[in-house]
Formats: sequence, C-alpha cells, structure tokens
Amino acid sequence: MMDVAVIGVGQTRYGMFPEKSLKELFHEAALAALADVDKGLDPRDVDEAFVGTLSTGGAQLGNFAPMMMEACGMVGAGARHIENACASSGFALRDAVSAIASGRAKVAVAAGIEKMSDLPRERNRLWLGISGDVEWERLAGTNFAGIYAMMARRHMHEFGTKKEHITMAAVKNRNNAVANPKAQFRAPLTLEQGMAAPNLASPLKFSDACGITDGASMAILCRAEMARDFTDQPVLVIGSGAGSDYVAIHDRPSMTMLKGAFEAGKEAYTTAGITSDDIDFAEVHDCFAIAELLAYEDLGFCDRGKSGPYIESGATLRDGARPVNNSGGLIAKGHPIGSTGTGQVYEVVNQLRGRADTQERQLSGARYGLTHNVGGSGAAVAVHIFKAVE
Amino acid sequence: MMDVAVIGVGQTRYGMFPEKSLKELFHEAALAALADVDKGLDPRDVDEAFVGTLSTGGAQLGNFAPMMMEACGMVGAGARHIENACASSGFALRDAVSAIASGRAKVAVAAGIEKMSDLPRERNRLWLGISGDVEWERLAGTNFAGIYAMMARRHMHEFGTKKEHITMAAVKNRNNAVANPKAQFRAPLTLEQGMAAPNLASPLKFSDACGITDGASMAILCRAEMARDFTDQPVLVIGSGAGSDYVAIHDRPSMTMLKGAFEAGKEAYTTAGITSDDIDFAEVHDCFAIAELLAYEDLGFCDRGKSGPYIESGATLRDGARPVNNSGGLIAKGHPIGSTGTGQVYEVVNQLRGRADTQERQLSGARYGLTHNVGGSGAAVAVHIFKAVE
Repeated sequence: MMDVAVIGVGQTRYGMFPEKSLKELFHEAALAALADVDKGLDPRDVDEAFVGTLSTGGAQLGNFAPMMMEACGMVGAGARHIENACASSGFALRDAVSAIASGRAKVAVAAGIEKMSDLPRERNRLWLGISGDVEWERLAGTNFAGIYAMMARRHMHEFGTKKEHITMAAVKNRNNAVANPKAQFRAPLTLEQGMAAPNLASPLKFSDACGITDGASMAILCRAEMARDFTDQPVLVIGSGAGSDYVAIHDRPSMTMLKGAFEAGKEAYTTAGITSDDIDFAEVHDCFAIAELLAYEDLGFCDRGKSGPYIESGATLRDGARPVNNSGGLIAKGHPIGSTGTGQVYEVVNQLRGRADTQERQLSGARYGLTHNVGGSGAAVAVHIFKAVE
Repeated sequence: MMDVAVIGVGQTRYGMFPEKSLKELFHEAALAALADVDKGLDPRDVDEAFVGTLSTGGAQLGNFAPMMMEACGMVGAGARHIENACASSGFALRDAVSAIASGRAKVAVAAGIEKMSDLPRERNRLWLGISGDVEWERLAGTNFAGIYAMMARRHMHEFGTKKEHITMAAVKNRNNAVANPKAQFRAPLTLEQGMAAPNLASPLKFSDACGITDGASMAILCRAEMARDFTDQPVLVIGSGAGSDYVAIHDRPSMTMLKGAFEAGKEAYTTAGITSDDIDFAEVHDCFAIAELLAYEDLGFCDRGKSGPYIESGATLRDGARPVNNSGGLIAKGHPIGSTGTGQVYEVVNQLRGRADTQERQLSGARYGLTHNVGGSGAAVAVHIFKAVE
C-alpha cells in the first residue's frame, strides 16, 4: 500500500453566491488548490478525480465530474462524481486515497461542491430531506432538524446532558468563525443568546443549526514518495475509515451513537496506528450542535455519555487541549453539502502546515489532525487522519 | 498492488418493471450475486460498496448507496454512490477494484441500478439529456440521438462507412439477444428491416438505438489470494482503465473517436499486460449502433476508420473470431443506465466461467474478456479486462 500525501488545498469562501455558476465556484477552488502546490503542478498530470456533490446544483445531472474537471483545465483524468449526501467529498477523499494507495494513480484530486442558493429557502430544505429515509422518515413528516432534535433529547434523557452543553458547541463554533475569512457566519454568539434563540426543533435552536451555503473545495494528493517534488510541506494522509448504517434512525439500536462514525473512527485509528489520545485537533461534522457532542464520543475524545462535561471543560476551544472546529465548523464556517468533506481537509492541512489564514486561528505544535464527515444522520461516515511531515 | 478477483455476479432481467421498487430491483440483483458465490459469503463480510446510478430512480436523492445496501442486508460496509451517467457502474467497478488493490478492503461490491419506467417516455428522454453538456448541447436542442447521429454521419463522410455497416451492429445485437433470457428486446431483426426502420436522427434509425430500461446488477470482488475460499471458478480483473474527455462533442478535436475510450483501453491493456489481439470477446457500449463501430476502433479491434469492413467480415458475430455483445448489448439486452457497467461484468464473468444462461450463447475457449462502458457521448469511459483462472 503506497503512502499518500496532500500537496495542495483550495477552497472558495463559503456563503451565498447566487451570481456565481457551479463552474465558477469549482474553478475558483481548483485554481486555489493548484496555486497551493508550491513548486507547481501541470493540471494535465492529474491521473484521476473524485468529485463530491449531492444535488449537482440541479444543473448537470450526469457526467458531473468530467464537466467540473473540464471547467478547470483537468480534461482527460478519469473523473467520477461521488454522492453520499453531506459526506460526499469525505468519500471522494477516501477513494482518491485508494486510487493512489493501490498504485494506479500518481496524482489524484478529491473535490466537492454544492450550489444551494438557486432555490427558495423552503425548497432547499425540502431536497435536503431527500437524503434521509425517503419512504419512512420523510413521509412521517420529519426532517434532519427533527432527527437531530430527537438525538439531542435522548442524549439529555440518557446521560443528563444539559441544553447548555449542546448550545456550547454552537457558541464555540460561531465565535471561532469570527476570525475565519472563509466562513459564512462571522457574528459572535454568547451562551445567553444561544439559549434564548428561537426554537428550530426543540431542544435545538436556530443558532444550533448550519445554514444554506454555496461553496467548493479541492485537495490534490500524490504518492508520498513524490510529494517533495511538489512542496516542501506535504501532509500525509495516515488514516482513512468509512462506515455505513441504517439510513433511518428508527432502524438503529441507539439514537445517541452513530455506529458508522464509530466504525469509521476505529478504522482510521487502526490504519494510522494511533489512538484518539494522539489527535491534536479535529474538524467534525456539526450540522447541528448535538452532532458535535456525538462526534466527541464516537471518536473517543471522551467517554460515552460524557460529551456534556467534556465540552464544558473547554477542552475543545481554540486554546483548549484538543481544539475542535477551529474553523467555525458547519454551523458557522458553513455547510455547502458536497464541499464540506474536502473543506475540512482544507482547514486541517493548512493548520498542519502552519498556514492558517489568520494568525489568531493558527494552532501551534499540532502533529495529528482529524476530519469527520457525516452523511445524513449517520448513514455514511468518512474519517481521515492527517500528519504533518517534520 | 493486490490482485483482484470476481467471485460472484448477479443481474435482474432487463425490461420495464413499473411494479418493482428500486429496493426490490437492487435486492434481486444482490441475492443473485450472493447465491453465485459458490461456497457462500456472509453479506456482513462485505467491507466496501460502490453503487452506480444516474437518477437514483428519482427517489432517494442522498445516501443512495447506504439505502440500497441496507435493502440487501449489507449494512455497515462503507458505501457510496458513483455517478458517471451511463458509465456509473463501470466506474463503481474501477473504484471497487482500487479499494481491494490498495489493501484496504478484502471483499467489495460493485453494483448498478436504474429505474427508468417511473416517468412518461418523453420525460425519460429529457433527463437522459441532462448527461450531455447542459449549457451548450442541450440549449442548442440536440440530444444523444442527435449527437451519435452526427458521429455516424461524420464517420460515413471520413471513411466511406456505409449505413448498412452501422445497421449491422444493431442487427447482430438484436439477433444475439433472442437467446438471452435476461434481455429486454428478444425479437430478431434483419438487415432489410433495420434499413427500412423509421428515422430516429438520420442516419440512425429507431432500431439502431437502445430503449428505456429498468434493471440492476452486482459483482462481488475480493483479494485474488482469498478467492478460492469462495469459489473454484474465480475470474481475475487483470486490467482497468479510465478516461475522460470534454463533455460536449463540439469541444473535441475528432467526432469519430472517443479519446476517453482510447485512453481507457490503453490503460486497461497496459495494466493487464496484453494487447487488443488477445481479447477473445467483449461487451461494448452500443447505446447507438455507431457507438459499437467506434468502440472497435478505439479499442484496437480494427484500424481507425475500418470498423465498417470489420463488422461486415462477421468477426464480431457470436461464431466470429471475436464476438462482441453476445448478450445483445445495450441495444437489445437493454440499457438501464446505472446498471449497464456491472451488467457487462455479469455477462463476461459468466462466459469465462462457462456459465452462460443458454448453451447457444456459451462461447468456447475464451480466456480474455473485455467490458467497455461509456458515459454520455464519451465524457467518461471505463474499460476492464477479465481472465478466467485455469
């Protein structure tokens, strides 16, 4: 199995860009990733491409990946579109890593994009729902806010977690985003404000949820043995894990654990040869604030049921022992569905290279970073672990 | 790079099954594939899954792959949906092969499905069009029939190919399907009938085109070193190639060559360590009859421009030197978009194992079989080469 390195990352700003086309957004992320390959890369040297999206912007339904790749001058590379709802580009990354690890590709691209601003807001929320169990959950009238609200309520019931604990994730992430120029929501939030926000799906408040976002991101990878030809600061992908689960929450034995995330984490740690204790910082999938707490437990950052006290301890703050969602996470950096997975890679790789966009956000001394990308309410999860090369 | 083997294949009948749901179709193909693993396989031992579809049946837009896998008892395997228009499951196969070759997965599934009978026929043709270049080709009013008609007209102009040569592919494939119980269209066709059929897009006639089809298919793969634990008749995947091209035909230097197919074939031959001369039989992507002639040339079965005389020689008939589309191909076996790639694998693997569904269709002495799966009008192409284990 060949070792794999990231040699360049790029991302658009996250936000609402109704004036930009799908191709423009993708092109912007691709140009940024190519420019980030310090010693240069000819786009025609990309062997294989994996492009994550859920909705294809409603435009190019088929051959989506070749169309995006052609838009940024990478014609010819075998390109395919990967869909796994909100984990689409987490899986694109996993498959790009496989393509290189198998010896087939020397240079591969993992990317993601979503254009969510083409529809009225209520219709956006509708098509997002079509990533849940369409036959049961949707017909029963619930949506992702409702499903995560049930998880939150159950976590409070089983473990005594307080609503304040859940709100703390939203507060932390919104405050983290203030210093992130690529983030969508950069207004700070206090615990008092978060607790007093209007209900979305009780106990979740509006400020506990991500929004509707446009954005694109790309990571360029190569065989680790070649990485120094492209940059003096390659970042190794040392662990990769994936798991799936029943799509509908009523089919799962637990409502407070994402088994797919637990399995993906386990595989990622095993392949990396490290444990959760080694993880210095992480970007996790906080589509709703409760999801971040579940991630702490599924990834082994704290014991099962203890995510409330764990976040209260301040461990995951920017200056804590293990910062989580220093970027602002999905809640505040933004969640352009297909882009989120490789957007997390953008953040983690920049941190490990000491290239955070603002000095305020730069973590010091971090060796191991983790990304955790969840599809739907846990139907598919991809976890990756990255390591700076000393 | 680990060697990879196919240990079981399954496919539904191809046809119009408005009464069957997506899950039923997928389940039927999965059960058949599992039953085809002679010594048995526990579905929970599948490590990873790659599911090809274009439209997701219009139903489960997101997390499509976990939903299909759960429907057949394979919950937990990291599952993602691969889209590449008509080449969706050809790329699913390629990525399943990578997952195993990289050492990550021991057992992986490549599958495909399409449910096209949910919409009125005219709307089906419309959404198929959204796999072409939406901004240019579609707005100019053309569709795939029109694009392939231009390729046919240009081939006739450049190389003196006769309309009869093109029709011969349709005639051969429709006659081949008569003996295939899994095929959609099993009525024979004569050259006279084909030449007299109504125009679809001149010079292509209605009988030169595939139809609207429902169907699903699955191939189960594992590390070659483990294959004998599952079957005494494993089939090795010795070559894999992929290529992409500009999505719109007006952006390509040639209208009579699919560069993506040429590149995919070249990579497949190189990785297999053989040449086109070694290929004993093939299933190629004849969405329109002209596409089969282009495939002969792109894959090196004959010289550039010589596909007309080549098909006229009878070389690709069932009893010819190199049978092509012995199954009936897309034109007569059927073309349920996402299923076509792994449906080709179903045919080739059964032939190499001496398990053709009817004695009449069984080829004798074949060692190397090839599949050629094209997305759109050539935007993405996957080619694979299979070898029987002696």
